[in-house]
Amino acid sequence: MIFIKKYFQVSFLFSSLICSSVMALEPIDLLITNATVLTMDENKTIYNKGLVAIKGSKIIAVGNGDLAKRYKAKKELNVDGDLVMPGLINTHTHASMTVFRSLGDDVPDRLHRYIFPLEKKLVSREMVRIGAQLANVEMLKGGVTTYADMYYFEEEVAKTVDQIGMRAVLGETIIQFPVADAQNAKEGIQNTLKLIHAYKDHPRITPAFAPHAPYTNTTDILKEITRLSLLHKVPVMMHLAESLRENEVIAQRSGGKSPVAYMAEIGALTPYFIGAHLININDEDIALLKKHDVGIAHNMSANIKSAKGVSPALKMFDAGLRIGLGTDGPMSGNTLSTLDELGQVAKVHKLVNQDRAAMPPVKVIEMATIGAAKALHMEDRIGSIEVGKLADIIVIDTKSPNMVPLYNPYSALVYSAYATNVKHSIVHGKLLMQNRDLLTVNENVVRKEALAFSDKVRKTVIESGELVR
Amino acid sequence: MIFIKKYFQVSFLFSSLICSSVMALEPIDLLITNATVLTMDENKTIYNKGLVAIKGSKIIAVGNGDLAKRYKAKKELNVDGDLVMPGLINTHTHASMTVFRSLGDDVPDRLHRYIFPLEKKLVSREMVRIGAQLANVEMLKGGVTTYADMYYFEEEVAKTVDQIGMRAVLGETIIQFPVADAQNAKEGIQNTLKLIHAYKDHPRITPAFAPHAPYTNTTDILKEITRLSLLHKVPVMMHLAESLRENEVIAQRSGGKSPVAYMAEIGALTPYFIGAHLININDEDIALLKKHDVGIAHNMSANIKSAKGVSPALKMFDAGLRIGLGTDGPMSGNTLSTLDELGQVAKVHKLVNQDRAAMPPVKVIEMATIGAAKALHMEDRIGSIEVGKLADIIVIDTKSPNMVPLYNPYSALVYSAYATNVKHSIVHGKLLMQNRDLLTVNENVVRKEALAFSDKVRKTVIESGELVR
Repeated sequence: MIFIKKYFQVSFLFSSLICSSVMALEPIDLLITNATVLTMDENKTIYNKGLVAIKGSKIIAVGNGDLAKRYKAKKELNVDGDLVMPGLINTHTHASMTVFRSLGDDVPDRLHRYIFPLEKKLVSREMVRIGAQLANVEMLKGGVTTYADMYYFEEEVAKTVDQIGMRAVLGETIIQFPVADAQNAKEGIQNTLKLIHAYKDHPRITPAFAPHAPYTNTTDILKEITRLSLLHKVPVMMHLAESLRENEVIAQRSGGKSPVAYMAEIGALTPYFIGAHLININDEDIALLKKHDVGIAHNMSANIKSAKGVSPALKMFDAGLRIGLGTDGPMSGNTLSTLDELGQVAKVHKLVNQDRAAMPPVKVIEMATIGAAKALHMEDRIGSIEVGKLADIIVIDTKSPNMVPLYNPYSALVYSAYATNVKHSIVHGKLLMQNRDLLTVNENVVRKEALAFSDKVRKTVIESGELVR
Repeated sequence: MIFIKKYFQVSFLFSSLICSSVMALEPIDLLITNATVLTMDENKTIYNKGLVAIKGSKIIAVGNGDLAKRYKAKKELNVDGDLVMPGLINTHTHASMTVFRSLGDDVPDRLHRYIFPLEKKLVSREMVRIGAQLANVEMLKGGVTTYADMYYFEEEVAKTVDQIGMRAVLGETIIQFPVADAQNAKEGIQNTLKLIHAYKDHPRITPAFAPHAPYTNTTDILKEITRLSLLHKVPVMMHLAESLRENEVIAQRSGGKSPVAYMAEIGALTPYFIGAHLININDEDIALLKKHDVGIAHNMSANIKSAKGVSPALKMFDAGLRIGLGTDGPMSGNTLSTLDELGQVAKVHKLVNQDRAAMPPVKVIEMATIGAAKALHMEDRIGSIEVGKLADIIVIDTKSPNMVPLYNPYSALVYSAYATNVKHSIVHGKLLMQNRDLLTVNENVVRKEALAFSDKVRKTVIESGELVR
């Protein structure tokens, strides 16, 4: 009897051990191991020799490497100590304009003298598709996993985003004069409603209204857009406080108000609003932006290249506003990876604040990730590597000579990294780039289509002698 | 008889044809074909479908592709339409400091509070060699073919430059307090004389004096260095007009003079002089710099990262001064390719001049190539692709998505290119990098030595709690 009891005890112990061990191996899709994980969570937790476990579209674990024994992964990505961080977010661009990149770079009053006429001649459904494809390739290879776009024929952009597997907020332009896909602002609104209808439930695409600017739309249209945005619960993206001329026009319209104060006055600042640029603003404007919980896209490259000035982005960040980095369009920036902005953002804010300690690297990385997610009002889903969030993750090569040695990862990313140091990219749990090879689109085909279209651009606006610098 | 005459005539005709054709095939070492050649010559000539012919260390032809039939090349490099341009020149760096990159990035008064103490602990012959090796790899991969260096134990840097095959101006530091390789300025001068003796006739290495700054050397020492520089016909490189504190110290020493006016007064500005930074200068200083035909290194990244200000580089360029771009050291910049400076130089000068047309791309490329060659007083030998010049040439990949499409090569280089877009590098006629693979050094060994040294740095100054930010 004693023997029998013992036998059962031992047997039970063994089987429970085996059972618990088997039970513990949770099947997952992707396990990133041997990683230096910059989580960008609230405490800026960093795991050395860490891991990230991904199941479906979500992060189900992040922590020290010894957690690995809990999982049985379909695929393991041992990153050999490289940096693993949230995918970069580009809060403001006009992706399709890649096919116009570097045309008329330094032309004064360029928007009205150059860009609008150029677009009148050349923007088409085909141009938007071809340009967006190239932009997607450039952004994904540069570590951008989510971007916010404002352009025409946005349903064409949506198709390309759907195909490549990235995440995007896509805003259909609304403007008071005839453009490629609408005769007036009302048609622009109708186009947006169609886009909302088509993409409202897409897991990676958020449709949005994109009124061009306050000075290119009437007060009535801006109010109507706000109403519809609240009704459909979709973002409104707009250029705001970008030029001194805008301040003059809006002051005239509103009895002396700043563009931000005017927008607040007409009820157009809401938690669905995302403003790009915000260069010419004062402390009262900043207080209004905060009060109305709006998101802000800070585009350093484009703003200084156009000599428009430097947004008080550091002040807004420190005041707790929702602010992220953007590249602006490829005719403005001229590249599309948020990574290209990092060093400039740090350095130019030091310069204008006359303080080398101003805008330290960690703040810049925050604005490229979780800050940008907040700007897009998506911080519950993306922007950091935390359990329950969507798995939008990139891996940065630390073997490239510019990244050696690595004493401080934030500093290395901000002051040393190139967009081309991005090695792998994961969006919505799916590996889209491995060892810099794109897995969902053919990069050569995309380039060839863009080059073929650029021949048309060359013939139309360069060789014809029109719009030549 | 008639028949015979005719036979001889025809025969003579044939043989002379064959002869001339055979005679015309000049044997050369390297032929670059199918190139978009940005010569950076006086007229900024660009050859589409062009070629460059190299024999020994020199360029013997540049022009349209049909010249190819004149040559029989040992090696042909068909670059498929990519950009071929003069190798980039980095006019100011401290290469060996790569092993300290990103330490104490944002510490105020960093030179005295952080860098000098750090160097006192860690600079050694070994550190200089290991750091320079890594810097060489980074620079060569980033398109730099010539650099100007100021540091300690420069003969160690010289050995690494000799091995990798790059070109460099190497300046031994002279400073009035004890440093790693000298107890005082006089010992620094002795070290420089030894360097001059060893490298005076090297085909790719130019030894130089490198007094640290006017405020860290006495007037007597600066005069003695000037005398020796003229005697030995070697450059003097020095930080000049870099900080407001420097202006104060020199004003006190000289009865109110600016650093530039003081240097002119003591006879230290000569055609052998190369000044780095020149931030705090006025129009009289610029006139003095021009009058004395000095070279100038403009280091945008380092100057704005340290919040020191923006040099009036555009004014100096437009006034015809000898000015080129520099990266400064990797604790200041923090990367070492001149290519990383291009966009920042263009954009920040637009910002401070409040003019988007200011500092157009072609001027920036000039400062990265022939302008930099002028700054180093080497424009007779390098800085442009012209017959008779040394073959220091790089090839830039135009297939990378950020480089597509390519309407204006200067614009693409300045606003879009990454250092990693450099595909091939040739120095002194020799191919040193092909398809981004280095041919004269083992990049992995270089990285491993640097990482091993960085462990020592980590233990000495980080884990010990000393010098932590």
